[in-house]
Amino acid sequence: MEKTRLETGFEKLSEIDGEAGHAVIESLQDICPDLARLTIEFPFGDIYTRKGLDLKSREIATVAALTALGTCTPQLKVHLNAALNVGCTEDQLKEVILQMAVYAGFPAALNGMFAFKDVLETKSKPQHEDAS
Amino acid sequence: MEKTRLETGFEKLSEIDGEAGHAVIESLQDICPDLARLTIEFPFGDIYTRKGLDLKSREIATVAALTALGTCTPQLKVHLNAALNVGCTEDQLKEVILQMAVYAGFPAALNGMFAFKDVLETKSKPQHEDAS
Amino acid sequence: MEKTRLETGFEKLSEIDGEAGHAVIESLQDICPDLARLTIEFPFGDIYTRKGLDLKSREIATVAALTALGTCTPQLKVHLNAALNVGCTEDQLKEVILQMAVYAGFPAALNGMFAFKDVLETKSKPQHEDAS
Amino acid sequence: MEKTRLETGFEKLSEIDGEAGHAVIESLQDICPDLARLTIEFPFGDIYTRKGLDLKSREIATVAALTALGTCTPQLKVHLNAALNVGCTEDQLKEVILQMAVYAGFPAALNGMFAFKDVLETKSKPQHEDAS
Amino acid sequence: MEKTRLETGFEKLSEIDGEAGHAVIESLQDICPDLARLTIEFPFGDIYTRKGLDLKSREIATVAALTALGTCTPQLKVHLNAALNVGCTEDQLKEVILQMAVYAGFPAALNGMFAFKDVLETKSKPQHEDAS
Amino acid sequence: MEKTRLETGFEKLSEIDGEAGHAVIESLQDICPDLARLTIEFPFGDIYTRKGLDLKSREIATVAALTALGTCTPQLKVHLNAALNVGCTEDQLKEVILQMAVYAGFPAALNGMFAFKDVLETKSKPQHEDAS
Repeated sequence: MEKTRLETGFEKLSEIDGEAGHAVIESLQDICPDLARLTIEFPFGDIYTRKGLDLKSREIATVAALTALGTCTPQLKVHLNAALNVGCTEDQLKEVILQMAVYAGFPAALNGMFAFKDVLETKSKPQHEDAS
Repeated sequence: MEKTRLETGFEKLSEIDGEAGHAVIESLQDICPDLARLTIEFPFGDIYTRKGLDLKSREIATVAALTALGTCTPQLKVHLNAALNVGCTEDQLKEVILQMAVYAGFPAALNGMFAFKDVLETKSKPQHEDAS
Repeated sequence: MEKTRLETGFEKLSEIDGEAGHAVIESLQDICPDLARLTIEFPFGDIYTRKGLDLKSREIATVAALTALGTCTPQLKVHLNAALNVGCTEDQLKEVILQMAVYAGFPAALNGMFAFKDVLETKSKPQHEDAS
Repeated sequence: MEKTRLETGFEKLSEIDGEAGHAVIESLQDICPDLARLTIEFPFGDIYTRKGLDLKSREIATVAALTALGTCTPQLKVHLNAALNVGCTEDQLKEVILQMAVYAGFPAALNGMFAFKDVLETKSKPQHEDAS
Repeated sequence: MEKTRLETGFEKLSEIDGEAGHAVIESLQDICPDLARLTIEFPFGDIYTRKGLDLKSREIATVAALTALGTCTPQLKVHLNAALNVGCTEDQLKEVILQMAVYAGFPAALNGMFAFKDVLETKSKPQHEDAS
Repeated sequence: MEKTRLETGFEKLSEIDGEAGHAVIESLQDICPDLARLTIEFPFGDIYTRKGLDLKSREIATVAALTALGTCTPQLKVHLNAALNVGCTEDQLKEVILQMAVYAGFPAALNGMFAFKDVLETKSKPQHEDAS
């Protein structure tokens, strides 16, 4: 029996974002469960499961875009974690963020780097979990 | 003798952007040659020469950011060409653009895809050169 | 005697934004009372008093724009309250926010929905007032 | 037998955007048919078919967001046509665009109004079709 | 007798933007004369007539903002002309545009500089008038 | 012996941003010292040292751009302090921020003004230092 987009998406979300992804989905349940479902189905069920680009490259693209846009710090943090989960190194992610100074300006790069600093500090505290 | 940032940057610009990069630099010479020089020195001399991230990943990051921002079509076209020059495939770039529907909305992805269509059509006409 | 734009604007601000609007105006008095006055005169005195579009539709337009822009969370919260004040239902506002996933991406829609969650939680606590 | 999301989405796209929507889908077929399919399935199959908000209000939200963002003129034109198709009046749409001066500045409102001027001029020429 | 905001604004618009400003106002008359009136009254009648900041500094602020936003090329061109009209030099404006590379990225600065190149080329052709 | 760009940049950073600039640089040392160095070298060593535009005008341009972009509150605060350091008056900066209502909308101007309110309140508390 074929999996639904929701099932496939949830597996992919779990693989990529882990606990931080589940926390986002959970925090939507009381206010708008449909947005939770659509967030699993479309980005994760439809897009991240596509062939043609490896997950590391997908996360590099996402980190670059969210750093450049500058309006999505909580999502940037989730995807910096996700990028580490799928095999990007800390140094590679610093390079992506730093490079955004060229395309979106130094404030975007600085704010992206400070977001990454928060992510790394949170990861290094085993008892503390980011609930953003 | 050590190369200057301008020399290193110009070599990197030529490697990555080829003729389209030279055209941008050339078109700045009468209005603001300092901006031409700074565009070579900082993005290409300082950033694209950095270790820690391969050129294919750097171009994926740039294509993602410029598609998401939506305000830089001429630069997006230059970097779609650059991405092909450094070894990204057409399909990989389509995936990056398409993925931006998730982070910056469908109009951004559509406009990015139409920019790529222009780039590919221009490349397939050997006698015609894009002067944008 | 004809009312001034300031008088008309203040009445409209009070009708639409209620206490949250007054709080914004009040918080400007020490730093820049002219911006307080202009905020009453132009948006409320000139625009929201115009015929040709009902207040519910005006608030739907504002909630959509502020969710899509992603840079104006305090103003989005004021207008989510305002939209409820002029008769939009919670479900209608959730649809507007959710729809922004299409035009501005999922992070914009998620952040808009979390702002609405805050608004609704604040409203349900009768003794507590949002001073943002 | 239940309709697929693609079938439902295509019907909704046809109802809302008419020929202009078909033209967008058609123009994607050679470069990225998957983006064409996803554009039908998610925005039209998943979102515009949702209950809870009437189509006129949905188009008001979309016109507001695209005017405010300022990066999506081709899509704004498609949705100004769509808004007229689903029953918004010209005057209502002018009010939505004009109101964006408050939230995204006068240039955004001016550029939105000029886009609407183009849309109305194109509509009044029966033999001419907009292929943007 | 006191002048109306419309009268004061029109005088200020004429002083600052000259013919290019009149062309914008004129082009709005058939589609939305109220937006024409509001564009004269608020930005020019209310803001540019304020004391506390000289017109050269006001135009430097506007050129900086419009270059950084990157979504308002027609308005940027009008204000580059306006900045020259009120006494900014070409070199000063090039510095403002170039500096935006730091805050909004190189593409924003490049596109701003190319807009200025267009403005200067149009000004140097006495028989030709920009109608954008 | 000629100073390096890093030395010139650090002197200029100290002149303009003072302690707040040093704090930004310091906070980058553990996460990405190269971004600290590039932030000194390019914006301060290459751009703010350029002739052709006085420092007050440069800060007016930066405050305008950061207010309009709306994504860089920490950097806006640093530059509001910097603008005061190089001789802009409080009233001039309020005018710049207020004027952004025209080009980026009222929420951008309001958020910029509230950032300035924070800056002025922090400055008036001699024992307290802003560490953002």
